[in-house]
Amino acid sequence: MAERKAVLVVGAGDATGGAIAKRFAREGYVACVARRNAEKLQPLVDEIEAAGGQARAFGCDARVEEQVLDMFQTIEREIGPLEVVVFNIGANVQFSITETTERVYRKVWEMATLAGFLTGREAAKVMLPRGRGTILFTGATASLRGRAGFAAFASAKFALRALAQSMARELGPQGIHVAHPVIDGAIDTAFIRDNFPERYALKEQDGILNPEHIAEQYWQLHVQPRDCWVHELDLRPWTEMF
Amino acid sequence: MAERKAVLVVGAGDATGGAIAKRFAREGYVACVARRNAEKLQPLVDEIEAAGGQARAFGCDARVEEQVLDMFQTIEREIGPLEVVVFNIGANVQFSITETTERVYRKVWEMATLAGFLTGREAAKVMLPRGRGTILFTGATASLRGRAGFAAFASAKFALRALAQSMARELGPQGIHVAHPVIDGAIDTAFIRDNFPERYALKEQDGILNPEHIAEQYWQLHVQPRDCWVHELDLRPWTEMF
Amino acid sequence: MAERKAVLVVGAGDATGGAIAKRFAREGYVACVARRNAEKLQPLVDEIEAAGGQARAFGCDARVEEQVLDMFQTIEREIGPLEVVVFNIGANVQFSITETTERVYRKVWEMATLAGFLTGREAAKVMLPRGRGTILFTGATASLRGRAGFAAFASAKFALRALAQSMARELGPQGIHVAHPVIDGAIDTAFIRDNFPERYALKEQDGILNPEHIAEQYWQLHVQPRDCWVHELDLRPWTEMF
Amino acid sequence: MAERKAVLVVGAGDATGGAIAKRFAREGYVACVARRNAEKLQPLVDEIEAAGGQARAFGCDARVEEQVLDMFQTIEREIGPLEVVVFNIGANVQFSITETTERVYRKVWEMATLAGFLTGREAAKVMLPRGRGTILFTGATASLRGRAGFAAFASAKFALRALAQSMARELGPQGIHVAHPVIDGAIDTAFIRDNFPERYALKEQDGILNPEHIAEQYWQLHVQPRDCWVHELDLRPWTEMF
Repeated sequence: MAERKAVLVVGAGDATGGAIAKRFAREGYVACVARRNAEKLQPLVDEIEAAGGQARAFGCDARVEEQVLDMFQTIEREIGPLEVVVFNIGANVQFSITETTERVYRKVWEMATLAGFLTGREAAKVMLPRGRGTILFTGATASLRGRAGFAAFASAKFALRALAQSMARELGPQGIHVAHPVIDGAIDTAFIRDNFPERYALKEQDGILNPEHIAEQYWQLHVQPRDCWVHELDLRPWTEMF
Repeated sequence: MAERKAVLVVGAGDATGGAIAKRFAREGYVACVARRNAEKLQPLVDEIEAAGGQARAFGCDARVEEQVLDMFQTIEREIGPLEVVVFNIGANVQFSITETTERVYRKVWEMATLAGFLTGREAAKVMLPRGRGTILFTGATASLRGRAGFAAFASAKFALRALAQSMARELGPQGIHVAHPVIDGAIDTAFIRDNFPERYALKEQDGILNPEHIAEQYWQLHVQPRDCWVHELDLRPWTEMF
Repeated sequence: MAERKAVLVVGAGDATGGAIAKRFAREGYVACVARRNAEKLQPLVDEIEAAGGQARAFGCDARVEEQVLDMFQTIEREIGPLEVVVFNIGANVQFSITETTERVYRKVWEMATLAGFLTGREAAKVMLPRGRGTILFTGATASLRGRAGFAAFASAKFALRALAQSMARELGPQGIHVAHPVIDGAIDTAFIRDNFPERYALKEQDGILNPEHIAEQYWQLHVQPRDCWVHELDLRPWTEMF
Repeated sequence: MAERKAVLVVGAGDATGGAIAKRFAREGYVACVARRNAEKLQPLVDEIEAAGGQARAFGCDARVEEQVLDMFQTIEREIGPLEVVVFNIGANVQFSITETTERVYRKVWEMATLAGFLTGREAAKVMLPRGRGTILFTGATASLRGRAGFAAFASAKFALRALAQSMARELGPQGIHVAHPVIDGAIDTAFIRDNFPERYALKEQDGILNPEHIAEQYWQLHVQPRDCWVHELDLRPWTEMF
């Protein structure tokens, strides 16, 4: 067991999180996948195991400190050292500023920022004594640019970027690689397929992001030698306006 | 009374907030000044009145929605239309990432971001029907750049900047001027004088920001004609490294 | 004569340059205005003098080092110390990348960047011994963002911004204020009126920038006390998308 | 011969350019390497051939349009379609603004920007009819940030970034992948070894960039599927302050 290495994907409920878990599992990492409802992760766990990998599902509300602490302790104790931690929870909502309730503004921050802070901080705690590890925070267009209707979401994503940047500057010289990929475009998910059919139709010409290709980028970030680390990069389809 | 125009400064407890209130009071605006403990605002109110201006102190915890709503209603009903709303609460703390508690991370966000959202949203609500008004959010170096030890503060200030940017894009074409001055340097305050005497000594050569000069910039932002609005500007002493 | 203070506007041929010259002339500065063909500046000189100001026209190709050196020497010797130097030459062209000739790419750089370097460097030379002065470089949307069809123009404007930023960091602590206002929107000029009538029609609702309002911002930048300097600010009409 | 694919590295005289050429040669690309003096490229050509690859040296002053045109024509006619073009010429000089001569400012731009424009434009011309290809421009810290003493270099690198960004926005939807890796740190080169021995000593702890690792990133950029392209990424050693 001491030989096992773990990856944790917080926010493994969507296509991107699932693809990242599978990509690392293929390399021999035990894929620890987390979302609020662990049962919904069973298909992902099954898929990883059917492909010969190892996986474990965690029911964890990443906004709740004790649940995050518990999860990290369990993984480190029962599974193996966390070499990679990915925070992949989004919370994309759209409201005009006057129709943004305090509850929405707070919830979006708790999901997209606070949970990222708790995840990132606990990752730092277990990685620092080992002097190595990779922490990845999924960013979005709204990480870089505010926009009408996106005050809550952009606030949360800007904040997550500040967290990633501050952690990179603090933890880099201690051997921890912190990166912030910015995904700028629609991803091939059930959500886009069901809600934005016109956008989804772009898939035929590679106009939406394939989660497996995103996962490949996350893997590449992890294996970069430490003399040549990337902190921020933007990922978008060739046809995307930017 | 119908002729009276009001300015609201949320976070009027420091030198900058006080100077802004005085600057607008000098132009005939009723200076509504807010901080948690209204009693501590009495010297500021006295000073404004002694100079022939009008002022009113509000005890308001701007993190609490009802208190913010009450304050806006009271001002609009009893004092006059809010032409200018300034959000000036900071929450500068410094901790390594592993020593940043959930409580600190949350408190800093509530003070520096959530309170700004509530203030900004209520300002938008009263200004939109009139199709005019100015909303100013005080930014800092940490609004633009994460840094080791500043994960909590930079997260909150990045988020406030996203709010300001999203609101500017949404409200500008509806006649509301939203701006985000970024203050990059130490300000001449009791806090700097007492805690950073070496830095404070730079005052002799104009090496720290004079709150009255900051206030003048806020005034200039307000009087800009609408064909020529500034959204973001950086303010720093001539000697400041950047 | 020793009491006279001079402002130099390089690129005084358009509405913005002219308005800046007039704004400073109103404050008692001798307005030195430059463009390639000095004769075309006569109406501007006449207008300034008719308003009680002082002005002098210089025929100067600011891409040619000796001409720039001559102009600075003449002003310093015959008129008075240059307190303010404004570089205001643009060179907005639009070509697809494959249709951008070497000649166009070079010309745009010479006009919008090299001339700015020569102007800024000579300004620094005369101001440094006095330990004071203001140098302003006019930026544009293309200073911050590349765009299809704007490879030549954006390259030149990005470069000018780098120049302004490098000079601000070098000269600020020596008492010279270097700023880079970014003008984001159409300006009320004959060029816009004649070529973009639909855009020009926005003037009725303040949808294009009034050169006098831009000039007011330039003046405000000059009079900022040195503890509270702005380096970069964006100017745009309230209706402008950004 | 029709099966052969070519990569062109303009600025192959340094360790980075050489490593990039070798990386692509290993994948079967004919490595076309260019610098002013072709003879100096013979060791690189020999090294590639000794490893079983194909290479060809071009003596080309990339600031001179005809020479660039000739080189592209020769490659396309005699070698094979250019699938990848890398522009890797730097021109890092350091002078205070007042000591920056017109000649230096112009030379740095010609080497680091104009040559990049000519190379990028010719690459676009041959790639557009095929609807595919990768164009990579090497950036530096000075691409993002002006600094005292770096007015000439930052101006040139900002301009190159504007070119890359404008080309990406124009050519992306036509199938051409344009990217701008920003190298932020010292590279393991003879120049650093001989001139900055203290810096070079960081090599033992992976504190300077290994050119082969940079080359690996360039290769990864080329093989990204078009639904998931990176435009900009930063590369730096783990110990580098940023």
